[in-house]
Amino acid sequence: MKAEIITIGDEILRGEIVDSNKALLAERLRRLDIECHYQSSVRDDRRDMRDAFRRAVERSDVVLVSGGLGPTRDDITSEVLAETFGRELLLDAASLESIRVFFQRIGREMSQANRKQACFPSGAEVLPNPAGTAPGFALQEAGTLVFCMPGVPRELGQMMDEQVLPRLEVACEKALAASTAGREAAGKPVVRARLLRTFGMGESSLEEELADIARDGDVELGFRTTFPDNYLRVVARAASASEADNAIERVVKRIHDRLGPLVYGEENESMAQVVGRLLAECGKTIALAESCTGGLVAQKITDVPGSSSYFLGGVVAYANSAKVRLIGVPESLLAEHGAVSEPVVRAMAEGVRERFRADLGLSVSGISGPDGGTPEKPLGLVFLALARGEATHVDHFVFPIERSRHRTLAAQVALDWVRRSLLGLELTGPSLLRQRGGGPSPGAPRS
Amino acid sequence: MKAEIITIGDEILRGEIVDSNKALLAERLRRLDIECHYQSSVRDDRRDMRDAFRRAVERSDVVLVSGGLGPTRDDITSEVLAETFGRELLLDAASLESIRVFFQRIGREMSQANRKQACFPSGAEVLPNPAGTAPGFALQEAGTLVFCMPGVPRELGQMMDEQVLPRLEVACEKALAASTAGREAAGKPVVRARLLRTFGMGESSLEEELADIARDGDVELGFRTTFPDNYLRVVARAASASEADNAIERVVKRIHDRLGPLVYGEENESMAQVVGRLLAECGKTIALAESCTGGLVAQKITDVPGSSSYFLGGVVAYANSAKVRLIGVPESLLAEHGAVSEPVVRAMAEGVRERFRADLGLSVSGISGPDGGTPEKPLGLVFLALARGEATHVDHFVFPIERSRHRTLAAQVALDWVRRSLLGLELTGPSLLRQRGGGPSPGAPRS
Repeated sequence: MKAEIITIGDEILRGEIVDSNKALLAERLRRLDIECHYQSSVRDDRRDMRDAFRRAVERSDVVLVSGGLGPTRDDITSEVLAETFGRELLLDAASLESIRVFFQRIGREMSQANRKQACFPSGAEVLPNPAGTAPGFALQEAGTLVFCMPGVPRELGQMMDEQVLPRLEVACEKALAASTAGREAAGKPVVRARLLRTFGMGESSLEEELADIARDGDVELGFRTTFPDNYLRVVARAASASEADNAIERVVKRIHDRLGPLVYGEENESMAQVVGRLLAECGKTIALAESCTGGLVAQKITDVPGSSSYFLGGVVAYANSAKVRLIGVPESLLAEHGAVSEPVVRAMAEGVRERFRADLGLSVSGISGPDGGTPEKPLGLVFLALARGEATHVDHFVFPIERSRHRTLAAQVALDWVRRSLLGLELTGPSLLRQRGGGPSPGAPRS
Repeated sequence: MKAEIITIGDEILRGEIVDSNKALLAERLRRLDIECHYQSSVRDDRRDMRDAFRRAVERSDVVLVSGGLGPTRDDITSEVLAETFGRELLLDAASLESIRVFFQRIGREMSQANRKQACFPSGAEVLPNPAGTAPGFALQEAGTLVFCMPGVPRELGQMMDEQVLPRLEVACEKALAASTAGREAAGKPVVRARLLRTFGMGESSLEEELADIARDGDVELGFRTTFPDNYLRVVARAASASEADNAIERVVKRIHDRLGPLVYGEENESMAQVVGRLLAECGKTIALAESCTGGLVAQKITDVPGSSSYFLGGVVAYANSAKVRLIGVPESLLAEHGAVSEPVVRAMAEGVRERFRADLGLSVSGISGPDGGTPEKPLGLVFLALARGEATHVDHFVFPIERSRHRTLAAQVALDWVRRSLLGLELTGPSLLRQRGGGPSPGAPRS
């Protein structure tokens, strides 16, 4: 089964938005083992849309379309699709009624413009949209399955999950059979994959480090950077599913042996989720004192549902006076060493641990820029401390990168320290960016 | 000039990443008034790439390619491009040397794999990449300009700005002349656009509210939702640039008159930037007490460079004990009313204002979910308070939306309160989501 995704909208082509819908749909297709061969985006333009629809039906078995189903004048997906394949555009009374009910429910009147949202190409099957006014639809054209869905990501996701995937599953039953059990029977290779998340080593070092493993028979290793992480994708092709799974297991074990704690998680589990899981498992609590990261670490931790069971709170101590009054950093320390220093960051971690009565106190203080560097304390300098009761670990790094990346990287190192601490590992920083005891190195790699 | 963008990489087609490069490139093209007609993505696959290159050169005047220039085996852009257009692949000694120097600078040895990054199709002009190892290149094929750039967003952005845009500007001189001064002379319309950012009214209400303005002669109004904001794009076509500018000015004024403070900013200025600018202008400082937003408001405020001049700090008081110890909320209030209540959120704002000695104290406490709702305090309930010395304003809302959207919306209302307060306006919440005094309304619109 060859799939293709088409998203529609002037705002995409103008670069006004980053279109995340294509990734959303492609990821869902992968769950059914359907490979997406093409993704394209066209403007709200009749000719461009018609060309895209025609080409897609010619070359693909499944076409997912998103956008252009709204009530406004430039929403012309249904109309153009009907036109392209010589179908009539018909009003669906049931859909019109649901749209009317939707507006009633939110206490407003349906406008005339919404009528067109109840019109579909003849032969199409309407896909309900409980989250919005725009229903979607499915139709079959020259053997190709075409699904049209709204462009609002939340509505799209729900319709894809509840309406399209089940239909695809049924329609692809044969193809699916061929791709797993069927492939086995037919002697075609079965494909399995696993994603490993690493933090602390640059992409090319990683690639060199794993060069021999990358060439392990039928297992392929893919590398991908999502700052500040590097992901490894292990893909295995084998005659049977169990063989493929075994091959992946074997390679994953070799990677773990080689990289050790650099691998922090798998698949969709973020660093903050790993940290949260470990804190919950150990029954430990944490409190934060953030300066340069300005609440970013707290935000990442509290992004995880259930974080209130281990996260007691934090202080964003931007001003020095806040460090003194809220966390109890002695004024003399600030006067003598400055806010970005070993003694102050230590006092911050210990102070916040004590005030929140937490098991762990974590602090970050640095110079994220764009201004504020001096010859002794260069732009990019950052101190971290983790107070654990028995002892407080403190270290510093220089990350010569721009402000928002600096904050992101510092926050990730901080979270990684908590992870390492809970696993009884040494607390380190990203190897390539570590610049002990000194000035900025303009030549340091930036990713 | 018709432009087209092609991004290359299996990870895009698999939906493992949201490809922001297309938006990056399209936005840059718009700066030169070059319209992007097509965006597509293909896998690291020879045939798919060849088809995409051929079609692009046939239908477009400018083709921007991103990705596939790395050192690994699946990076085949240069090779396939050479093949597609019958060119040889030649080693460029100067590029090889710069790659060698790049590795030297970061204290590592160049690997053999990097050699291929110095190979380009014959006739290509090499585009240097100061931020990474992969140089790009430009070539002309059948009258079409093709630019190949790396897929790493930072490297891509820099190469686009420093290498491609200047070349495009020269190459497009004629087309550009035709599009502005030239268009005037030739009697063709000149196009001008402006983006207005609004917060507090749903997209369809906004559209109804502005229905008459949307049909104002040669001015077109576009609507776009980027949760929790709604953007208005005012596009004017006129015989001369000054006429177009005047038309935009006239319509923007009408929109401001109609919507009042719902319009909070223009173009790229975020709500946090607007708030920061106003705080700096008024010479006021702010401190935060966050519960359900968990540091998100602090993170947004400190994302703005220079925020240390007005942001003193904040407390993320997740645990009740933190509210008592760090902000001085009386235990009796928490016991009597609970953490999500009018008296507690008021005490949080006033407490944090006093402890940080700030002009403004802002607090948020709510139930973002996924658990924690009761019949009296439903999931989605959120209280906000803004302490301003003379008085503290408190209000509450119910946003029946999922956790991360709840946090995002609550944070935006909080920031909007600060903006409104500094402008002497009434403090309100998003009109459609306001649910005074009560239970959740499952039918409330969700965007």
